[in-house]
Amino acid sequence: MILVNGVAADSVAATDRGLAYGDGVFRTLLVKQGKARYWRRHYRKLECDCTALAVPCPAEALLAEEVKRAAGDQADCVVKIIVTRGSGERGYAPPQPAASTRIVMTGVLPQYPAEFARTGVKLHLCATRLAHQPRLAGIKHLNRLENVLARAEWSDPAIPEGLMLDQDGNAIGGTMTNLLIVADGGLMTPDLSRCGVAGVTRERIMDVAGAHGEACHEAHIPLARVLEADEVLLVNSVIGVWQVAECAGRTWRAGAAAARVRQWLDVEES
Amino acid sequence: MILVNGVAADSVAATDRGLAYGDGVFRTLLVKQGKARYWRRHYRKLECDCTALAVPCPAEALLAEEVKRAAGDQADCVVKIIVTRGSGERGYAPPQPAASTRIVMTGVLPQYPAEFARTGVKLHLCATRLAHQPRLAGIKHLNRLENVLARAEWSDPAIPEGLMLDQDGNAIGGTMTNLLIVADGGLMTPDLSRCGVAGVTRERIMDVAGAHGEACHEAHIPLARVLEADEVLLVNSVIGVWQVAECAGRTWRAGAAAARVRQWLDVEES
Repeated sequence: MILVNGVAADSVAATDRGLAYGDGVFRTLLVKQGKARYWRRHYRKLECDCTALAVPCPAEALLAEEVKRAAGDQADCVVKIIVTRGSGERGYAPPQPAASTRIVMTGVLPQYPAEFARTGVKLHLCATRLAHQPRLAGIKHLNRLENVLARAEWSDPAIPEGLMLDQDGNAIGGTMTNLLIVADGGLMTPDLSRCGVAGVTRERIMDVAGAHGEACHEAHIPLARVLEADEVLLVNSVIGVWQVAECAGRTWRAGAAAARVRQWLDVEES
Repeated sequence: MILVNGVAADSVAATDRGLAYGDGVFRTLLVKQGKARYWRRHYRKLECDCTALAVPCPAEALLAEEVKRAAGDQADCVVKIIVTRGSGERGYAPPQPAASTRIVMTGVLPQYPAEFARTGVKLHLCATRLAHQPRLAGIKHLNRLENVLARAEWSDPAIPEGLMLDQDGNAIGGTMTNLLIVADGGLMTPDLSRCGVAGVTRERIMDVAGAHGEACHEAHIPLARVLEADEVLLVNSVIGVWQVAECAGRTWRAGAAAARVRQWLDVEES
């Protein structure tokens, strides 16, 4: 089901700036047993991303109600929320004031092979590099051509994800996931101050690692460091945690980190 | 008027990848006295940009007919053409095969003050920098948040355009225009191999300069070189040619180059 500004619809104004310029942000999250998982955190990130682009963010209660309504009687589903700067005259200048467009759509949970979670996944090493743009780094905005081009590099269904590097050769993340590595006995995740998307699952891991007697540091992580890591993990709100079993000729056996981090994540938040 | 895939409509599928990811390209051109100006060149650029993203490009005759139909009885108007990779499942992987979406929309010609063309324009120097992304450089794609953020930096209607630099401080162009400078007696335009949009009017100037006994070289042009230039010009398909009268504290008197280049451009092409 799709709700556009609260109304069931299957289309959006052709003059919407989300279409014209990718002028907006989005979220993807899970509804499980009728409940939007980690909703507060997703909403806060949406609000933060809207603020970064000066796009008016819809009120939390309004969006929460629309998520519930879009999910309807689907106990479990994926929800995507898009917020754009709305329609405007031709031209880059943002309308003042802007009336944002909100789109809430649901889809079925993707069914990944059970071994992706059990024994790990094979990663494609993407040739498409991420540009450094500190002004947009971290934000889950609608300018995602880099991800599209990277994802178009392979079509083998046995390879569910690709590793993206930045222009300097640092690992930044998957096309749709954040990256963590276990190295020198600790967890590390790429510094996302120049490119990449700072996802909610990565943020949750960074927040709770300390409570579990570990730490998760942000760092510049060259590809070589990923390939030397003891374990490599991919995370997002839909897949949870996958261990990487193979990338660029290196293979890894199943380690303990994926299960440990999965356990950290498997708690409800207030 | 708006035509979506040839049908009068005011909306686009909410699942279109143009909205989801900015996964598409666009063109802006003029219809004058019922005729799309420099149509062949615009179509070729659209085709070239579609090819660069592996988006299927609509046939030329089909688009030409839709431009004519959208313009209707408006003798003079602006036409915007958007071509996206169409709708698809959630996820970055492009659908195989993709069925592109084409949107043809018309608008009134913008009315700029007569002195913009006569005595020149004042430029805002944008703080928003363009990221280096060679894979997307030159393409007029729908990922335009950098332009939106740059254009949002000022609102004074007496300033019609802003100058954008890349991350190294080279001048790349305006938010909606290409840049040319007159320096050392010759025309130069920024190298667009790392960022920026290679527009059709810039291309026409580069093509015909030689026939007029001049040359137009591509080069890396640091901001300082722009500010020291004898004349600075902005060009696109809608405005034609503007001379820059003021930018970052430097002022220029009206020179001869704008009129000369305008004359070069004022010929119909086959």
